Amino acid sequence: MTFSERNFIKQIEALTPASTPDLIKGIGDDCAVLAKSQNQAILLTTDTLIKSVHFDPAWHPPYLLGRKAAAVNISDIAAMGGQPRFALLSVGVPDATEEDRLDQIMTGFHSMLEEHNMILIGGDTVSSPALMFSVTVIGEMETEKVLYRSGAGQDDLVWVSGPLGEAAAGLEICRSHEKKYDRWPSLVKAHLDPKPEVELGRILAKSGMVNSMMDLSDGIATDLAHICTASSTGADIRAEDIPFSESLLQAAATLHLNPLDLALRGGEDYQLLFTSPPEHATALPCLVRDQTGGEIFHVGRITAGQGVMLQDNDRRKNISFQGYEHGG
Amino acid sequence: MTFSERNFIKQIEALTPASTPDLIKGIGDDCAVLAKSQNQAILLTTDTLIKSVHFDPAWHPPYLLGRKAAAVNISDIAAMGGQPRFALLSVGVPDATEEDRLDQIMTGFHSMLEEHNMILIGGDTVSSPALMFSVTVIGEMETEKVLYRSGAGQDDLVWVSGPLGEAAAGLEICRSHEKKYDRWPSLVKAHLDPKPEVELGRILAKSGMVNSMMDLSDGIATDLAHICTASSTGADIRAEDIPFSESLLQAAATLHLNPLDLALRGGEDYQLLFTSPPEHATALPCLVRDQTGGEIFHVGRITAGQGVMLQDNDRRKNISFQGYEHGG
Repeated sequence: MTFSERNFIKQIEALTPASTPDLIKGIGDDCAVLAKSQNQAILLTTDTLIKSVHFDPAWHPPYLLGRKAAAVNISDIAAMGGQPRFALLSVGVPDATEEDRLDQIMTGFHSMLEEHNMILIGGDTVSSPALMFSVTVIGEMETEKVLYRSGAGQDDLVWVSGPLGEAAAGLEICRSHEKKYDRWPSLVKAHLDPKPEVELGRILAKSGMVNSMMDLSDGIATDLAHICTASSTGADIRAEDIPFSESLLQAAATLHLNPLDLALRGGEDYQLLFTSPPEHATALPCLVRDQTGGEIFHVGRITAGQGVMLQDNDRRKNISFQGYEHGG
Repeated sequence: MTFSERNFIKQIEALTPASTPDLIKGIGDDCAVLAKSQNQAILLTTDTLIKSVHFDPAWHPPYLLGRKAAAVNISDIAAMGGQPRFALLSVGVPDATEEDRLDQIMTGFHSMLEEHNMILIGGDTVSSPALMFSVTVIGEMETEKVLYRSGAGQDDLVWVSGPLGEAAAGLEICRSHEKKYDRWPSLVKAHLDPKPEVELGRILAKSGMVNSMMDLSDGIATDLAHICTASSTGADIRAEDIPFSESLLQAAATLHLNPLDLALRGGEDYQLLFTSPPEHATALPCLVRDQTGGEIFHVGRITAGQGVMLQDNDRRKNISFQGYEHGG
């Protein structure tokens, strides 16, 4: 059988009973949301990384592996506009693991927490046939500012927070025999050491100009389809508006990869994907530039249709949920 | 290397920075404790179960496996006197897993949540070389009633909430070729389908008569040593006061096992282990009998010494941290 995350979510949604007053959002978004007080919400997310499924120690240095195990969970907090605060960590360790290697993993994990002023508050270690990390991150934010996948409306603008396909290209570079690490360090870094967009997520949530958001873990073809499903809308994106870095275009040419495929269907960019009403077309990128010095990129529009449609020169096709699925 | 949980905890404690006002207790107890409001605390715990390390599908029916994955985490909430509220679940699933088997696991997991009016609020599924569950449970309770491992004092009485060694005996029965399941169903159930003592934990925490508590996941020799370490005390326990069930004594005789070994060093009983000042020697068991109809058992006393000492007829020996370690 192929047991996809979507089937799993459907199955457990069917089992889950009605809500309770302090549960604001259960399964189906980047985080669960609980009421902490009248105005403050707690965000909770969990994610598991398993050797050979989610990472390959052949090219993933243990320090960066530890950082990534934290980062992909922190990104789920950023995806709703939250401030990450605490983490719990379960590590599954094969008996033959060298202590030094494990130290580097833990030091890396902790360095990512430190960058966000987070504290590790619990965890355990278990024997495991394969190295694995199961991480839970707890965040918090103002309840009324939480950005869900479900808030997009017709004619809203679709934005991404940075160039796409970087991590997928980085993975291909790591996989290639030539190991051209030095030539495109930004791509390799995007795969090995992704940066969760916490600061930008906070700014967008506080701006009042954004009405839906998630992080790009499975590629925009899949992730924008999640926003469309949750918001009961469709979306049109334009190939010519997808932001590519110069490095990505060079690497794709050298490695005979299709940049658009990497951007649409490659995963793990951990950029933010979000929508805003059209009247903020100028103010939103201006605010971001003011507060971060960075750019955001307008890639499409929410429609009354169904699914994610790609306009690529004269062709128009449905790309909803295309791409690979991993646990993210 | 042998990578024990204690080393891991030491390592991450060394990495963990100073506290923050809303972190009441970090690493080192059954749960982390966060401030929710002035009077209410949030409890958080995470635990991972991996095939062949923590369970054997050869004798563990999938429905009961799902229940146990939830129960061992709920027990950590019970261990501090809390009310479990929500769960997050990561399931690692080998590609060849039958859908029906997975349905039974999920139905079992959910049945345990339902028994405690809990809600599954998040989770993911990932491909995995071995079936595994990583569960996070969120509980809550009155901040001032939380029972830590560190509250025991000299001359306090040491109590357990039920007969010991049941789960270890049940595991031996499941392992034995004869598979005498029908003969001692209560022992087999203790291993396959443990019951987290949530109701009793709440009563003890509210009683005001208990000053330290944890759950028995690794055997009293190890778990009482945790209380002693956290409380900077020692403890004396008397072999003759360890509660054994009639089934355990029969099974031990038939299978040539030492009942005392099972009780002291066997794990996964998920009974509560707790201490009270000596003046509550009569009132505490009386309160429990009144409110639950059940018994608690006085097995020893906290001392000014170091380590857990066992008095067995004329012999007295240090049994601290003896027993097997698993991820619990």
